[in-house]
Amino acid sequence: MEVIVISSVLQPEHIKLIEDTAAKTGARVCFAENENDVPDDFKDAEVVYGFGMNIAKTSKSLKWLCVPSAGVDYLMKPGTFANEECLLTNSSGAYGVTIAEHIIAVSLMMMRKLTVTYAEVLEGKWGKAKPQKSLKDCHITVLGTGDIGRNFARRARSFEPAALTGVCRSGICDEAAFDRVLRTEELDDILKETELLVMSLPDTHETRGILTGKRMEMMPEGSYIVNVGRGSAIDEDALAALLEKEHLAGAALDVFKTEPLPVDSPLWRTKNLLITPHVAGNLTLKHTLDRNVEMFCEDMINYSKGLPLKYLVDRSAGY
Amino acid sequence: MEVIVISSVLQPEHIKLIEDTAAKTGARVCFAENENDVPDDFKDAEVVYGFGMNIAKTSKSLKWLCVPSAGVDYLMKPGTFANEECLLTNSSGAYGVTIAEHIIAVSLMMMRKLTVTYAEVLEGKWGKAKPQKSLKDCHITVLGTGDIGRNFARRARSFEPAALTGVCRSGICDEAAFDRVLRTEELDDILKETELLVMSLPDTHETRGILTGKRMEMMPEGSYIVNVGRGSAIDEDALAALLEKEHLAGAALDVFKTEPLPVDSPLWRTKNLLITPHVAGNLTLKHTLDRNVEMFCEDMINYSKGLPLKYLVDRSAGY
Repeated sequence: MEVIVISSVLQPEHIKLIEDTAAKTGARVCFAENENDVPDDFKDAEVVYGFGMNIAKTSKSLKWLCVPSAGVDYLMKPGTFANEECLLTNSSGAYGVTIAEHIIAVSLMMMRKLTVTYAEVLEGKWGKAKPQKSLKDCHITVLGTGDIGRNFARRARSFEPAALTGVCRSGICDEAAFDRVLRTEELDDILKETELLVMSLPDTHETRGILTGKRMEMMPEGSYIVNVGRGSAIDEDALAALLEKEHLAGAALDVFKTEPLPVDSPLWRTKNLLITPHVAGNLTLKHTLDRNVEMFCEDMINYSKGLPLKYLVDRSAGY
Repeated sequence: MEVIVISSVLQPEHIKLIEDTAAKTGARVCFAENENDVPDDFKDAEVVYGFGMNIAKTSKSLKWLCVPSAGVDYLMKPGTFANEECLLTNSSGAYGVTIAEHIIAVSLMMMRKLTVTYAEVLEGKWGKAKPQKSLKDCHITVLGTGDIGRNFARRARSFEPAALTGVCRSGICDEAAFDRVLRTEELDDILKETELLVMSLPDTHETRGILTGKRMEMMPEGSYIVNVGRGSAIDEDALAALLEKEHLAGAALDVFKTEPLPVDSPLWRTKNLLITPHVAGNLTLKHTLDRNVEMFCEDMINYSKGLPLKYLVDRSAGY
């Protein structure tokens, strides 16, 4: 078995873990910074770990692609894989911690008006105290109860919210931090009492456009939205309009329909919109990178033994 | 018994609670926006709730002053009370929730480089992902285990730190969120492994200047400091120097030796210093104001019955 690892951020300990795992499984492994650097004798490799989209598109030998991202929407188009049977795993499970911290950070920045206070500080201004909201006694709803939603819920719980409700397709989630978990069909009911809506959904045909303007209008006046999933889930124009008229008190978007957000996008100037440039979850946090490599190695063992892959993507569901 | 309430931020429900409590205790109560507005027939009142420093200084009838602040350092100078026997209560216990949220917010802003990312966003710039740190696996030390330190610890716990150590005079604190609690004499030992130091100390002769340059140098390279207590606890010049040479990765100060921070203070331009204008805990958060009024009313009952006041300040200890 030949394994190509494509990455420019691996540290010596990660390389060692991969090499040790390869030794256990009898695999030959090569490391490349990008797809162009792969040595010729690996051109028929059956496993790629990394963003190996060109290899996937051209190599019929490829049997398993493991990507370091959690989202896999960019791999769902026909023609992505030369070998239609190619297995796909992702790194959903590596990003929960870091994205949960992002959600807490931006929620508090908005609710405590640190967005405004810090902008004043950057101008050398000692501003006045501003009206604040708190996670304490807040009605929080988490749309998407995967790794991210659960990690957020466990942290949010400690802030003593009034309610912490999960929403997912099945309405079933074993994370004890949630007070209750509802089915997506019940979303409208819960939005009426949601003061902070956290969205951590993958991009699928079921989630695209799920947060319509009508649904945002159902939320109480003065409520907040955080989106760390995919930009496609929200009607951005409706969101901007509801922020401008202050129906919503704030929104924090880390993901957008178009990324990078175009220079001329009106979102840059939308009132009470906290933009971050898709940085909630990335490999610049050591914990995330560690988990990412560990998860791949775990599945390398499974693969070598012919066992089912633990982090397999359901390509029909799209995540 | 006559009670003067001085406040410009009370809501109808707070006034009702105070009036109901006054009715129970047989007290006559007046509400004034500031000390100059107090009606003449209340000039010999024995109780003041609010910032009644002029009354305290001049009235020999005053027997109990309840201030809405947690810190009482500004009431420790000789001559503050015309009646030396006047009881003093503070509102320590009302600010734990809001200040704990502030600490989490600024810690994450620094460690996740949101300070830099958000400054870029304010300029319309879609920046790159930056190296991050996490509260997960972080060695956190909390200097001061009062209401603020405990509320912070309970929240920080949920982020899965490597260690969460409290430090206080006695070394005794019943907050289960701490892994351990050390005595102030043991501070030097724990600083050597502290990656995030949270300071929530009152201003007393024991805390003044406690964080010397030498102690900050003991902290590992790349560590962080948050101060929400009083500015007097830190050697500000030494802190600035250690930030400039990047021994410390960041500091978030909400309190300063001089407030407002002078326009020409070099701190405004210190590298990786997150300044906030003493906004971690204030009455613009409803929960804090509610607690503040509740605590006063609780002690109004105690006072009327001749029972010890629950929120009494130990004027010899200074907090």
